[in-house]
Amino acid sequence: MTEIIMHGCNGHMGQVITSIVEKDDEAKIVAGVDITGEKLNDYPVFKNISDCNVKADVIIDFSAAAALEDVLEYSQKNHIPAVLCSTGLSNEQVEKIKACSEKVALLKSANMSLGINMLMNLLKTAVKVLNPEGFDIEIVERHHNLKKDAPSGTALALADAMNEALEKPYSYNYDRSKDNEPRKKEEIGIVALRGGNIVGEHEVVFAGNDEVIEFKHTATSKAVFAKGAVAAAKFLKNKESGLFDMADVISAAK
Amino acid sequence: MTEIIMHGCNGHMGQVITSIVEKDDEAKIVAGVDITGEKLNDYPVFKNISDCNVKADVIIDFSAAAALEDVLEYSQKNHIPAVLCSTGLSNEQVEKIKACSEKVALLKSANMSLGINMLMNLLKTAVKVLNPEGFDIEIVERHHNLKKDAPSGTALALADAMNEALEKPYSYNYDRSKDNEPRKKEEIGIVALRGGNIVGEHEVVFAGNDEVIEFKHTATSKAVFAKGAVAAAKFLKNKESGLFDMADVISAAK
Amino acid sequence: MTEIIMHGCNGHMGQVITSIVEKDDEAKIVAGVDITGEKLNDYPVFKNISDCNVKADVIIDFSAAAALEDVLEYSQKNHIPAVLCSTGLSNEQVEKIKACSEKVALLKSANMSLGINMLMNLLKTAVKVLNPEGFDIEIVERHHNLKKDAPSGTALALADAMNEALEKPYSYNYDRSKDNEPRKKEEIGIVALRGGNIVGEHEVVFAGNDEVIEFKHTATSKAVFAKGAVAAAKFLKNKESGLFDMADVISAAK
Amino acid sequence: MTEIIMHGCNGHMGQVITSIVEKDDEAKIVAGVDITGEKLNDYPVFKNISDCNVKADVIIDFSAAAALEDVLEYSQKNHIPAVLCSTGLSNEQVEKIKACSEKVALLKSANMSLGINMLMNLLKTAVKVLNPEGFDIEIVERHHNLKKDAPSGTALALADAMNEALEKPYSYNYDRSKDNEPRKKEEIGIVALRGGNIVGEHEVVFAGNDEVIEFKHTATSKAVFAKGAVAAAKFLKNKESGLFDMADVISAAK
Repeated sequence: MTEIIMHGCNGHMGQVITSIVEKDDEAKIVAGVDITGEKLNDYPVFKNISDCNVKADVIIDFSAAAALEDVLEYSQKNHIPAVLCSTGLSNEQVEKIKACSEKVALLKSANMSLGINMLMNLLKTAVKVLNPEGFDIEIVERHHNLKKDAPSGTALALADAMNEALEKPYSYNYDRSKDNEPRKKEEIGIVALRGGNIVGEHEVVFAGNDEVIEFKHTATSKAVFAKGAVAAAKFLKNKESGLFDMADVISAAK
Repeated sequence: MTEIIMHGCNGHMGQVITSIVEKDDEAKIVAGVDITGEKLNDYPVFKNISDCNVKADVIIDFSAAAALEDVLEYSQKNHIPAVLCSTGLSNEQVEKIKACSEKVALLKSANMSLGINMLMNLLKTAVKVLNPEGFDIEIVERHHNLKKDAPSGTALALADAMNEALEKPYSYNYDRSKDNEPRKKEEIGIVALRGGNIVGEHEVVFAGNDEVIEFKHTATSKAVFAKGAVAAAKFLKNKESGLFDMADVISAAK
Repeated sequence: MTEIIMHGCNGHMGQVITSIVEKDDEAKIVAGVDITGEKLNDYPVFKNISDCNVKADVIIDFSAAAALEDVLEYSQKNHIPAVLCSTGLSNEQVEKIKACSEKVALLKSANMSLGINMLMNLLKTAVKVLNPEGFDIEIVERHHNLKKDAPSGTALALADAMNEALEKPYSYNYDRSKDNEPRKKEEIGIVALRGGNIVGEHEVVFAGNDEVIEFKHTATSKAVFAKGAVAAAKFLKNKESGLFDMADVISAAK
Repeated sequence: MTEIIMHGCNGHMGQVITSIVEKDDEAKIVAGVDITGEKLNDYPVFKNISDCNVKADVIIDFSAAAALEDVLEYSQKNHIPAVLCSTGLSNEQVEKIKACSEKVALLKSANMSLGINMLMNLLKTAVKVLNPEGFDIEIVERHHNLKKDAPSGTALALADAMNEALEKPYSYNYDRSKDNEPRKKEEIGIVALRGGNIVGEHEVVFAGNDEVIEFKHTATSKAVFAKGAVAAAKFLKNKESGLFDMADVISAAK
């Protein structure tokens, strides 16, 4: 049994994880943290994680970037591993996570789904084969009409993964309407569609001469991300220290 | 038999039309015009249309916007209808075309393919049904890596067609990476991918709650546009005056 | 306020409609019918519709084809219009519905979503334009791995709609692996993919020379069909008699 | 310079390869073989390969399965490596190729494109990750309306590649309309669309719970296969013996 503190428990993802865990015999949310302090489920809810006095195996954080420092402090002080799912972190915060992971086990991932994390690996191979043949790389993503940021953190993570496999990293182009000249070879176009309540689609396009190869991931429910977070929590339980990502969870599962 | 003056005969589209017409028993190119003056095919080539002294039924223009005035002057002076396929015309030029069409038959279309022109009609109906239900509209287009302008003239024409069907026209958004806020209801996102030698793809996405409807057109050869231009030429032969578009050619074919 | 008897109230669609109606101020489920007789919601549940003594404006039927006769009898006897959503009806049952609709208002539709019903109309226009130009028509649909029938009733309804627009109806080909010869001109290929928990996707492909046009509908939640059924119920209230479909609901909404 | 005997030189693929090689400084067709015996290009053409007395480095075979034995005999007798691109070979013929490859270098591939052969490798990895998570696998392919066989040899080769990565191979299902029961876990659905002049599209779909991952390859010109065959010929030159496939060509290029 993995006992979880759900940080950001009353937010949308917090509630999806709550309902996923309710049906999981090997995991249990023993406490929640939410700025509202409101108790929506059968576990106690604290306004601030520093107030939480419930023993647990792992923290899952799906709250705001601003709360990261509180989570890291609590995690380190009580030696409880943490799954960090907040996006939009600053470079400074990413450095803090690295430093902190020398003392406690932390997992950080731009996207918690199995499919996206597998794609990241395959794309590195694809780039190595297709780039020398002159294929151009473009990314299109689609999300619901309430999403504020564009392109999505996952689209950027996919592009970053491909850049790791390139000798010289490509730049990202978000708007070709300004250019009025042919695309540059050393760039990846990344464009975003917004509409309806689309959960999340990411498509990576390799366009060559007379040949196009496409990799597409579609999430049709946020449960995908919730399941990934819970799998990550189980993986992280009893780990002493270190910085992990979803690729480690996937490798361990095989 | 429809006798054609091919204006811009040595350009890429001019040559595709030349090879299409060679296999067509009902059409013939009797003269070409090209700034190079070079004779590449079995018809005479003039450097400027004003030098052309060959009798013809129709002009097809697939050259640069800058040459439009010459074509219009020749068309009007010799009372020969003209199919105008050059893109990137100024508002002033569009007005000149309208004025000129009172005296001679002219046809202007952003895209010469049957499929795109049919889609424009269907999209007007779709917008009327789906807009009141709160569907968001987005357009993605893909073209080869040498194309300079983005989004394509066809993508803009598709958006314009939908705007005609809306009570209050929507604005176009080419780059959501700048916004950092949810999409506005009264806008159409239009994004462009560039890569390889993709001939042309246009996709219109209507995204609603739990339901997405997509209309997609793929051209796999420029012959599609050439065939449309030749069909338009046949349609225009013997027309006295008026401003037409490909929708008229399609209607007449039925 | 439209008062509804939900026939098949404890089935999956019955429960989705229940939760949709709970949030709708203009509709209310006043009674349910289900062979289990179990009361899951705040309305009374009868084992058989003939036992139902609650006054209502409309019946929504989302149960099994076997129960159709009971619904029709009750509908006629009490003069309550009915929205008939059961699929897999026999020709004999379809005839019964027609006969019964002379006395009471009935609505029957293979698919309750706005998008699919709009597409049916647009496809009729598309077929008239593209068929004379030699375009081939194919349909691909995708559904979850528990669906028994293939192709889906909706895929067949889309094909039927196109056939109505053709002078001579095309035959349907579900398996080209047997043929070992080129496709026939006068056929529509209809193929089915099954996997995961895909709610429902339908794509109609018009493939011509150098040009492909695709129409795609994706439903990402069964709520789409529930909402359509409730809209149909509101439309049918107070109608005296006649046979309607979702196209009538859409037209009335405009 | 790689000197090539083009077997099946007057067929469609033979002519495409001829025009590709004309622009390639490192390859040259020194003789053609075609049952017509007609000389269409600037190299000599023989009716039967046994009549060919021109020295060469490699044979490319894009003719009919029936001619395979002639090619193998000539290849072995003159110790010239051969790129074997004919499809629809019998099991007996495949065995002959294996036996013959002990004496001369042979390369056989169901599809000559870089993209398809790269996908085959990536799909093996994908299957290992996604199969334990319960993802269902389906394949859709699209080709022109003159293609006789369905599904395509490439679709079968993609399925075979995935089966190699599975502990227990899955069966293939070409027609779900017959079943009237849910899909079986241990099967791959493979369906074929035919229409217009589509060159070739292959899509592999992994459908899980709330998550779908798609791999798609689109060839927009047969030049893709021609280029692959020429790359294979260059790779095979001076090889002593052994049985190779396009994956070896790709690996060598890196």
